[in-house]
Amino acid sequence: MEEAGLAVRRDAAGNLIGRREGGDPTLPVVVTGSHLDSVYCGGIFDGRLGVAAGIEALQAMAENGIKTRHPVEVCAYRAEEGTRFKGDISGARHMTGSGAEADLAQADRDGVTLGEALAARGIDPVLARSASLPRGYAKAHVELHIEQGPVLEEREVPVGIVSAVSCQTRAECVVRGRAAHAGATPFPSRRDALCAAAEIILAVEEEGRGRDGCAATVGELRIFPGGVNVVPGGARFSVDVRHVDPAVKNRVFEEIVGRAETICRLRRLEWELRPGVNQNEALPCHPDIVSLLSSVCERLGYPVATLPSGAGHDSTSFMRICPTGMIFVRSRNGLSHNRDEYSSPADCLAGATVLYHALVELAGG
Amino acid sequence: MEEAGLAVRRDAAGNLIGRREGGDPTLPVVVTGSHLDSVYCGGIFDGRLGVAAGIEALQAMAENGIKTRHPVEVCAYRAEEGTRFKGDISGARHMTGSGAEADLAQADRDGVTLGEALAARGIDPVLARSASLPRGYAKAHVELHIEQGPVLEEREVPVGIVSAVSCQTRAECVVRGRAAHAGATPFPSRRDALCAAAEIILAVEEEGRGRDGCAATVGELRIFPGGVNVVPGGARFSVDVRHVDPAVKNRVFEEIVGRAETICRLRRLEWELRPGVNQNEALPCHPDIVSLLSSVCERLGYPVATLPSGAGHDSTSFMRICPTGMIFVRSRNGLSHNRDEYSSPADCLAGATVLYHALVELAGG
Repeated sequence: MEEAGLAVRRDAAGNLIGRREGGDPTLPVVVTGSHLDSVYCGGIFDGRLGVAAGIEALQAMAENGIKTRHPVEVCAYRAEEGTRFKGDISGARHMTGSGAEADLAQADRDGVTLGEALAARGIDPVLARSASLPRGYAKAHVELHIEQGPVLEEREVPVGIVSAVSCQTRAECVVRGRAAHAGATPFPSRRDALCAAAEIILAVEEEGRGRDGCAATVGELRIFPGGVNVVPGGARFSVDVRHVDPAVKNRVFEEIVGRAETICRLRRLEWELRPGVNQNEALPCHPDIVSLLSSVCERLGYPVATLPSGAGHDSTSFMRICPTGMIFVRSRNGLSHNRDEYSSPADCLAGATVLYHALVELAGG
Repeated sequence: MEEAGLAVRRDAAGNLIGRREGGDPTLPVVVTGSHLDSVYCGGIFDGRLGVAAGIEALQAMAENGIKTRHPVEVCAYRAEEGTRFKGDISGARHMTGSGAEADLAQADRDGVTLGEALAARGIDPVLARSASLPRGYAKAHVELHIEQGPVLEEREVPVGIVSAVSCQTRAECVVRGRAAHAGATPFPSRRDALCAAAEIILAVEEEGRGRDGCAATVGELRIFPGGVNVVPGGARFSVDVRHVDPAVKNRVFEEIVGRAETICRLRRLEWELRPGVNQNEALPCHPDIVSLLSSVCERLGYPVATLPSGAGHDSTSFMRICPTGMIFVRSRNGLSHNRDEYSSPADCLAGATVLYHALVELAGG
């Protein structure tokens, strides 16, 4: 950011912001940005490409001698993935006043809370609540991100325009059975928490698969106590359900809960559902931004391809405070959250070029 | 052991042995013993009760002024459970020359091998191979152990006599799919290793449940990379199948392998089976010891209850070198490998009394 000539600051919630001044510093800011954090064993494009493309776009404005009326800022948002601490999009939610305070109490695997982790980095968790941008601060938010799915590759286009972002429910399911000897415990006496979890995992898949455009996943699972010769006494796993239509998402989640209830009752197990993220508002991108991005694509000779996003993004938190849109860059094999995640230099350039022109236009350059 | 007046030694493989001399020190030794190690979150009776009862029996001989012709030894065998290192009954197998050498290369979760762990405790892993007892050393082996299942409780008897120990197969199953974004990856593009594992886990249960007297368990499972928003790319889990009849055990295991093969092929996943313990010989207790224990029970006024053992025990390695038998003590709720594992003082005393009389008789007291 400094090399690109930007004025760099870190906000109270740990987001990193680079600013290019406009002709009138009092005008609302055109914002772009994405995140630098990743999932375990993730790739190097998810999030980071959007931050790099934003910096590149602002540097290109300087190199091309573009003067804009509005200031433009590029942000690296803290902790989008919710990997170490529960509560995804944490930095951007702090910035947009979308109730991220509860995140501060979330603890990681070692019992360290987000508040403590922030404090260890010199970020005061009490002040973090004050990171919220003043009303009217942002004119628009445009984020570039890799697609993380196979749609653009199937349509053979380098760049896509996001129509809407899926709503999602995340929860943790805890099943309690009874640890017992694996050799000496006959099946009628067993209360095997892993077998119950296995049935629920397959129910999650089946319910998700049954609705068009739905994603339903168990991505985390731990069993207790864990031993080749021990019938598992406990299991804890995540459930993640998404759909662009919150009603469909909720119906699928309720079906899953109903089936888990039945599975555990029949197996004489106790179970508990700990609620996590529950995003129920429809999250459409702003029609003005969608139409701006479409005309930029047309002008540059790229096919105009709109698609929904099954993945959540920092942009969703900006939808509440300003017109927001997203540019997707094609992912090879539709792969993300995987070390083999890849977008070609040509596709990255196409996406960054669309971002550049959209930012210039929004900022009145 | 020292307080009980025994001569204590540690053998080259890390087994602890307490000896009470007989009238003729050159006669074969009557051996009793069990193990001190446990599973994760296990109870305090499994194994330890047998060691304590053995010491108690030898101390009682001294207190009662019993002189035996044969020496009697009580052993605390190293690492029966195979919890930290694969390869169960490790110490007793070293002692009975039953091919425990391969265990030395097994690594724990942190990559430390058993050989290295032994060396760190001052036990030379090369010399450990020499722990094997000389031919003819043992006259008989009698082990006291908790039942770890519900049979004695159901029959309302405090003490049981083991007829035979189940054969078992242990293996590790590795499933490789593809990690992907949980929100953006449509079901047809997924190669979810956890869903495949879930199907296999339920197949293990179903195949085991389908044969009388069979135990089949998945007790360990880990998934990779593990993240609420990541479709699991890999899963690794244990499979443990047991039956007193090795033919039935093998048929069940083959059925499971066949089903895993089909499940992974249909889901376009790679998988691999890493063989572990494979105990195929029938493991009956010696009829002379069974009949001795029966007559001791009759004499003491306990019902004579014989039952097979689904659990493996140190005794199984002694079956190859001398007449071997086992005494079971009733377990509350049939529970073991669980912190709530419990046998009443009265039942423990009953078992130890049977052990005492059996040892005295075998040793010619």
